[in-house]
Amino acid sequence: MKPRGNLLLSEIREQPEALARIVERRREIEVVARRVVAARPRLLRLVAHGSSDNAASYGVYTFALLARRTAMRDSISLAVYYDAHVDMRDSVVIALSQSGQTPDVVEYVARARRRGALTVAVTNDERSDLATVADEVVSIAAGEERAVAATKTYMNQLAVLALLAAATGGRLDETAAALEATIPLVADAIRDVEAHVAALAVPFSFVGRMFVVGRGLEYATAREIALKLTEVSRVAAEALTATDLAHGPVAALDPLFPVWTIASDDESLPAAIEAAERAHEAGAALVASGGAADRIADADYYLTVPTAPTPLTAPLLSVVPGQLFAWALATAKGLDPDEPRHLRKVTLAR
Amino acid sequence: MKPRGNLLLSEIREQPEALARIVERRREIEVVARRVVAARPRLLRLVAHGSSDNAASYGVYTFALLARRTAMRDSISLAVYYDAHVDMRDSVVIALSQSGQTPDVVEYVARARRRGALTVAVTNDERSDLATVADEVVSIAAGEERAVAATKTYMNQLAVLALLAAATGGRLDETAAALEATIPLVADAIRDVEAHVAALAVPFSFVGRMFVVGRGLEYATAREIALKLTEVSRVAAEALTATDLAHGPVAALDPLFPVWTIASDDESLPAAIEAAERAHEAGAALVASGGAADRIADADYYLTVPTAPTPLTAPLLSVVPGQLFAWALATAKGLDPDEPRHLRKVTLAR
Repeated sequence: MKPRGNLLLSEIREQPEALARIVERRREIEVVARRVVAARPRLLRLVAHGSSDNAASYGVYTFALLARRTAMRDSISLAVYYDAHVDMRDSVVIALSQSGQTPDVVEYVARARRRGALTVAVTNDERSDLATVADEVVSIAAGEERAVAATKTYMNQLAVLALLAAATGGRLDETAAALEATIPLVADAIRDVEAHVAALAVPFSFVGRMFVVGRGLEYATAREIALKLTEVSRVAAEALTATDLAHGPVAALDPLFPVWTIASDDESLPAAIEAAERAHEAGAALVASGGAADRIADADYYLTVPTAPTPLTAPLLSVVPGQLFAWALATAKGLDPDEPRHLRKVTLAR
Repeated sequence: MKPRGNLLLSEIREQPEALARIVERRREIEVVARRVVAARPRLLRLVAHGSSDNAASYGVYTFALLARRTAMRDSISLAVYYDAHVDMRDSVVIALSQSGQTPDVVEYVARARRRGALTVAVTNDERSDLATVADEVVSIAAGEERAVAATKTYMNQLAVLALLAAATGGRLDETAAALEATIPLVADAIRDVEAHVAALAVPFSFVGRMFVVGRGLEYATAREIALKLTEVSRVAAEALTATDLAHGPVAALDPLFPVWTIASDDESLPAAIEAAERAHEAGAALVASGGAADRIADADYYLTVPTAPTPLTAPLLSVVPGQLFAWALATAKGLDPDEPRHLRKVTLAR
């Protein structure tokens, strides 16, 4: 019998190396960015499912903050199933898919091209259907990912979305430098968290549900950590913004309903601190993670990571505790972290 | 002691009357729509929190399908907390808030106006901060809502988003007619579902978590039903698109983890049927609701509503079983459906 969880853990550990590979390719990304700028888009449409869609949440922020451009996570069902005739001549589409095989993402890109959009595929397989149908291709260069749950491909999608946005905003060099400075910190985070995450995960063995709270740049991280907890360790974990929590879900909390908060030292920190206070008052067990976890008072568990050189690269660090916690909790529960039930690596569902 | 749940139930029952009021006001909405068209927007930015944000998910579809325009749920944190300098001169902002007091929605509108957007407030209080700060105001005319959980204000926000989109797309009369034809069906749905929902809710008394699956036009409904279940009846219910379910969360399912699917007879139905099959195979208990609930095979519980005159008005009917189920489940659990713990009617949290 093969040891369970080896694939997922080794791919989590490979992330600094994968990141280094994508930062090295920044000149290739710059070439695509020039074509994006030349298309003079009024709107960037990000399309993806699953972890790639979580990365897209980060892309909304990178394009606004690094290039002053509006990016949105577009509705795939509107274009593909409802056949909505929306003018896309002023749009650039950025389609993210690890495998490049997700059928309705491929179909969306084909239709968007016909409607006048410039289309860019961001994928780990440059010979995939998605790469073939799009005008431009950016490889995420993560190397083959064999565990069903995405880790290093998510990390490299974040890096691509930072580099592509930076290059369209004339800020490529500073952003590449920030990413380069982040790489050894990601390695530190993996080593440090891995050393104590197993003991920390054990008390969560019978937890059925969690909320994962993040706002702003860290909303993508909240979504990705919630997905890892759900698919790898079978906890029904829902991502919420700090404000979402106050608008209803706080009513469902109790001491057996833990809340995971992500705290990074940027403009979203006050909201994260307030959300943690609200969850604590409602009696929830509190997990604080991220570079500013120590700013969350009264947490029951801390998963601190190094502070990022700039807020924009903090999500590359903040996701690490979630990846490792999901792996450790699955292991504690006797589940196979590499191959969750009912899932396959390439999701063909609509 | 006042009888618990009277406010919520009576406001659910008031919905046909509230709907009739807003459809009567269609000429006022048409005036605002003319100003929207005159602004020649390239993009509609919808901003809201909580139930209003769920209604905004529906607005994304109404503007695409009735007016061939791109609408997005915009990031409030980017504009308000990160102070992103995005050009908004080609944008119309539609800000939804029942109370008109949500601080960061008000602040977003103030900033968007300064950046050149035409701003429209959609609110139940025409003298609120939001109405004051926006260029244009559309009243949702739902009458005072006293239960903490939104019901009739959500319903009327849907109607406003259908009418406003229709008027900008030159399809006001047909859409108003479809809404008018839907009103008696909403009354039928309330009466029919109320008659048997109490018995149906009882077996869910100890359920801790659920997924609510909807796609396309019904994704807004899935979000709103999940929020009602969470805030009113303290079930951790997460809304997913049919595709989201396959991209990870299906791995967490088991027989004690029910899945609620919303089936309406439009282009999203095949995806809803497939998602239900996937949940059934994973051993989940299945609730099927909506106008095409009978197309979901092997569901354990059915909450059927009348078929809408057009797919566009189906979400007004589909939400009813969720509202009544949340009320009934809270009652069965001995909770107060009118005033959930930790919540207030007006949420001031950021």
